[in-house]
Amino acid sequence: MPSFNNRVTKLFNIDYPIIQAGMVWTSGWKLASAVSNAGALGLIGSGSMYPDVLKLHIQKCKSATTKPFGVNIPLLYPDIEKHIQTVIDEKIKIVFTSAGNPKIWTGILKQHGITVVHVVSSSTFAKKAEDAGCDAVVAEGFEAGGHNGREETTTMVLVPAVKEAVKIPVLAAGGIATGKQMLAAMILGADGVQVGTRFVCSDEASNHIAYKQLLVNSKEGDTMLSMKKIVPVRLFKNHFYELINEAEAHGATKEDLAKLLGHGRAKKGMLEGDLNEGELEIGEVSALIKDIKPAAEIVKEIWNDYNDALKDLIKTNNHLFP
Amino acid sequence: MPSFNNRVTKLFNIDYPIIQAGMVWTSGWKLASAVSNAGALGLIGSGSMYPDVLKLHIQKCKSATTKPFGVNIPLLYPDIEKHIQTVIDEKIKIVFTSAGNPKIWTGILKQHGITVVHVVSSSTFAKKAEDAGCDAVVAEGFEAGGHNGREETTTMVLVPAVKEAVKIPVLAAGGIATGKQMLAAMILGADGVQVGTRFVCSDEASNHIAYKQLLVNSKEGDTMLSMKKIVPVRLFKNHFYELINEAEAHGATKEDLAKLLGHGRAKKGMLEGDLNEGELEIGEVSALIKDIKPAAEIVKEIWNDYNDALKDLIKTNNHLFP
Repeated sequence: MPSFNNRVTKLFNIDYPIIQAGMVWTSGWKLASAVSNAGALGLIGSGSMYPDVLKLHIQKCKSATTKPFGVNIPLLYPDIEKHIQTVIDEKIKIVFTSAGNPKIWTGILKQHGITVVHVVSSSTFAKKAEDAGCDAVVAEGFEAGGHNGREETTTMVLVPAVKEAVKIPVLAAGGIATGKQMLAAMILGADGVQVGTRFVCSDEASNHIAYKQLLVNSKEGDTMLSMKKIVPVRLFKNHFYELINEAEAHGATKEDLAKLLGHGRAKKGMLEGDLNEGELEIGEVSALIKDIKPAAEIVKEIWNDYNDALKDLIKTNNHLFP
Repeated sequence: MPSFNNRVTKLFNIDYPIIQAGMVWTSGWKLASAVSNAGALGLIGSGSMYPDVLKLHIQKCKSATTKPFGVNIPLLYPDIEKHIQTVIDEKIKIVFTSAGNPKIWTGILKQHGITVVHVVSSSTFAKKAEDAGCDAVVAEGFEAGGHNGREETTTMVLVPAVKEAVKIPVLAAGGIATGKQMLAAMILGADGVQVGTRFVCSDEASNHIAYKQLLVNSKEGDTMLSMKKIVPVRLFKNHFYELINEAEAHGATKEDLAKLLGHGRAKKGMLEGDLNEGELEIGEVSALIKDIKPAAEIVKEIWNDYNDALKDLIKTNNHLFP
């Protein structure tokens, strides 16, 4: 089969326009290198790493793949300067930034020849990212796991809105775990997709196996956008979520919620597998995931499903393709 | 061009698998007949009509079109028996039911030869509708206007989930105003789409012109799912919404909210055009709507855009279609 190519495969020099999200406690060098070796783009998630840990993951990832890979940096990370310096020192070529203002760091990263992509939840933020010099944006819908926007715009509406607002390539995120969902996102205006939740249930993801199994057995309605008074985060509805939810229903303040959240909740849940007391950040599409498998098989499965869905379209629309 | 056909066009005997939602204070005989005359399926929204008003709208719709049309009946309507009797007496052939249990009325409607479609917000409810004998379901995502589900599942995730759960045809709703969005929904597993918000901005919709103009000038983030303690409803964020939102943030009870809501808020807002004090039920996709036009042109525009998007796919995927 001749190879697929578009603005996103060219921007990152990859085979398929599929990006694996850089998720806390999940996306280490093992996952990122496995995804990149499979022809998609792997990202190391630096949000849960100390600066020296990030350096180690980058070095191990370089040993594990000769293909392009990148690093996700949440811009609200406390030691942000160190993370920026690390990706520059390590000559990382691709950085995805999220949760913050792209104006501050994009220019500096680009001076070092780094391709910069920013995650946004609205077309207004997408325009700002473009103006800040970003090479592409991720348009992340309400259904996505983890940190999320305040306007609650879903992928179905957000992707066309962002596409209309900017000229740079658009990656769709939120609710995408299958090739059909990927094709749907591409029709809405995306040039590629960022997939998070599906890769949480991969062999190489560093999160706890009990957490992966919980997701495989989960159903619709098991996640909810929560902690809106602090920063909206989509969580799995476990005991910790219920505590937050109960407090919010009774008018808890920002400070009450911050106290309830405490420290280390995400690590406790996702890495250590404390499924009751931990904070479990995950997307709605977890309801559709039925197995845990190697990341390379997930990439292959999504791409094959995308192509099958395309061929099916030709069959079911014989008014156009007789 | 040869005509399109699938399970939905055959079920309703229509040209395009597009259904216009039966919306309160919006979908009278003028809108329903205009849509049906254009080759899609028009629905009269009985939720805001007294029984004798519904009868009149059905009779006028019959005079205005020889094409199939239907009636939407919210099952929580206080005088539900009268509405059911009216559609039977008037020999209506298609009924869409929503907001309630399909077990009670589906059998009776089907005994009278009526095709019954039920609106659902989860695959569990879809399965129940199928078991109750419904001929199809509408899978309505979180982004949709008006009454909505408690699980907050978006169209991107809900449609594949419902498709997997039932054998009967699936209509996607929520976030669909363009042919691209329609095509995306079809790829996700839908056999057709139900479009609401787009038709609110049609010449024939009976809602107030000031409301239509408000929507044409609206942007992302202008709607929000609200009143979750009573029944979740997606509203335009006007002064009335702010009152509700403020009360909810301070822990208002169900009773507090019911008192704030009072009576006649929806009529005041949508029909009478009191954009501050009225309740304005609308979907997220309103942010993408830029004009008010005849319903027939909307049908044509969606269908042409659907076909153009399909042809574009062939061009942009030349690895499959060289």
